Amino acid sequence: MLMKRVAVAGLGAMGWPMAENLDQAGLEVLALDALSERADAFHRQASGHKAAIDSVEALVIMVVNAAQIRALLFSDVLVAGGLVSQLPADACIVQMSTVAPADAAALAAEVAAVRPDLHYVDAPVSGGVVGAKAGTLSIMAAGEAPSLARCHVLFDILGQAIFEVGDRPGQGAAMKAVNQLLCGVHIAAAAEALALAEKSGIDRQVALELVQGSAASSWMLRDRGPRMVAPPGEVTSAIDIFCKDLGIVCDAAGSSRAYTPLAHSAHQLFVATAEGGEGRLDDSQLIRTYRRLNGCDPEGGTQA
Amino acid sequence: MLMKRVAVAGLGAMGWPMAENLDQAGLEVLALDALSERADAFHRQASGHKAAIDSVEALVIMVVNAAQIRALLFSDVLVAGGLVSQLPADACIVQMSTVAPADAAALAAEVAAVRPDLHYVDAPVSGGVVGAKAGTLSIMAAGEAPSLARCHVLFDILGQAIFEVGDRPGQGAAMKAVNQLLCGVHIAAAAEALALAEKSGIDRQVALELVQGSAASSWMLRDRGPRMVAPPGEVTSAIDIFCKDLGIVCDAAGSSRAYTPLAHSAHQLFVATAEGGEGRLDDSQLIRTYRRLNGCDPEGGTQA
Repeated sequence: MLMKRVAVAGLGAMGWPMAENLDQAGLEVLALDALSERADAFHRQASGHKAAIDSVEALVIMVVNAAQIRALLFSDVLVAGGLVSQLPADACIVQMSTVAPADAAALAAEVAAVRPDLHYVDAPVSGGVVGAKAGTLSIMAAGEAPSLARCHVLFDILGQAIFEVGDRPGQGAAMKAVNQLLCGVHIAAAAEALALAEKSGIDRQVALELVQGSAASSWMLRDRGPRMVAPPGEVTSAIDIFCKDLGIVCDAAGSSRAYTPLAHSAHQLFVATAEGGEGRLDDSQLIRTYRRLNGCDPEGGTQA
Repeated sequence: MLMKRVAVAGLGAMGWPMAENLDQAGLEVLALDALSERADAFHRQASGHKAAIDSVEALVIMVVNAAQIRALLFSDVLVAGGLVSQLPADACIVQMSTVAPADAAALAAEVAAVRPDLHYVDAPVSGGVVGAKAGTLSIMAAGEAPSLARCHVLFDILGQAIFEVGDRPGQGAAMKAVNQLLCGVHIAAAAEALALAEKSGIDRQVALELVQGSAASSWMLRDRGPRMVAPPGEVTSAIDIFCKDLGIVCDAAGSSRAYTPLAHSAHQLFVATAEGGEGRLDDSQLIRTYRRLNGCDPEGGTQA
């Protein structure tokens, strides 16, 4: 199925480059943001025509949370009466923000209640800003088969690995929660292990080199480990992000009634770190909390 | 420093191939085991001469636990009066079994108290039977610099990656604990995540494929994950092994007074799985405990 016109709601660090990639791929894009000057700036630099809301085949949503999604769909934040009231028949809502599975399912049901003629696909992503810019996101899509089918042209522009994870909105969000469970627990495990090495009087660089190359390794250990054993520097992804994402994991586990003790432990460590005033530090700095609990200098200056 | 004659105590799944590699490298080996017929079998197939205990430059120990090490060093298990009484002056004890850091340090001190003329190196390994056979173990060595120096010829035969992690016996064991903390927590995290995916109604093969290729990945996820989503089969490493190894991690954290909530959670899951009668299953089958706690069929037959 061809797609020619698409609206993108949310021009943040993720949404902007995604809208750019759709524009570069030759689609007519309608860019929307609560800050209308941001949408104007996008259209000044876009290469293609600006689409009209009543002619788009899809609405891509990339915002911060479920409250923002509900507002832009049903109230006047972006267009009068809400986007749901303005979309043409048969258009597809492609919700790509990270939300709890229960919220993802509820949003789809709320849309279906007032506009049963619309499609709804729950399609969160992983790969971050780097993946959004490069068009290499991993996309976890859930929805009815015909709805998914019409989104593939978009997914192929925005992403590299496309996974159809279920036929019900909410299952994309559940898959994202599974992914974030592993990411968050692996960061905490790396911090726990390297802080134990330090407390045991082992040189942290030697310890990191060893575990990076053994069966103990993880993607997060290799990525965050070097920043754990160095002084706090660049913020690639903040502690606050994993407070939110592991919070969603815990909510998802609660809704599914699934046992997730590691995710809960890791979430509490991230939250405690944020409540200690370090929510905006790079998430590698979770190790500071372990060091404090171990009676060590949080900077890592004094090894036991 | 050249080394020509070495004793190896413990001819199990690890010790036998390690002794073979030393023999193949041209050293004279004295193979010792509590089952003397096992030692005899080794010498019938060895290519080099059998060394005499009072002429060896090193004693490599690879047994199950600290109690076995203490017995072979100080009592009549392998040689009359214990190996410590028989070793020549200046010989080096190279203790490669996995024990708690406090045990590793205590054993070294007990040897030094009666034979201050001996060297003692604490040098646990990772890489398993595969690494022992191939001579590609990772070795985590701790001891005084001159003692470590004389072991390098052995380490180069037995291992591939040699890490000097400290100058005190006990620090090798501590580094091994750090490594096993990550391995054990990563297995539990993989089981927790895949069981949550199943409970959310996501196809487990799709979920596994996704997280194997994303920032959620770990060495253990890629190795154990496929066995988690398949029926129980071959036992590569048993649940019981991680009951022991994560128990050592918890002991090590207790001695160091370090905070390790993820390791403790994972340890309890392995122990509960063993106490449920599944200690001899492959450690990937930890997922059965999660499935039970999630109200699912432990075989994975019914996804929610």
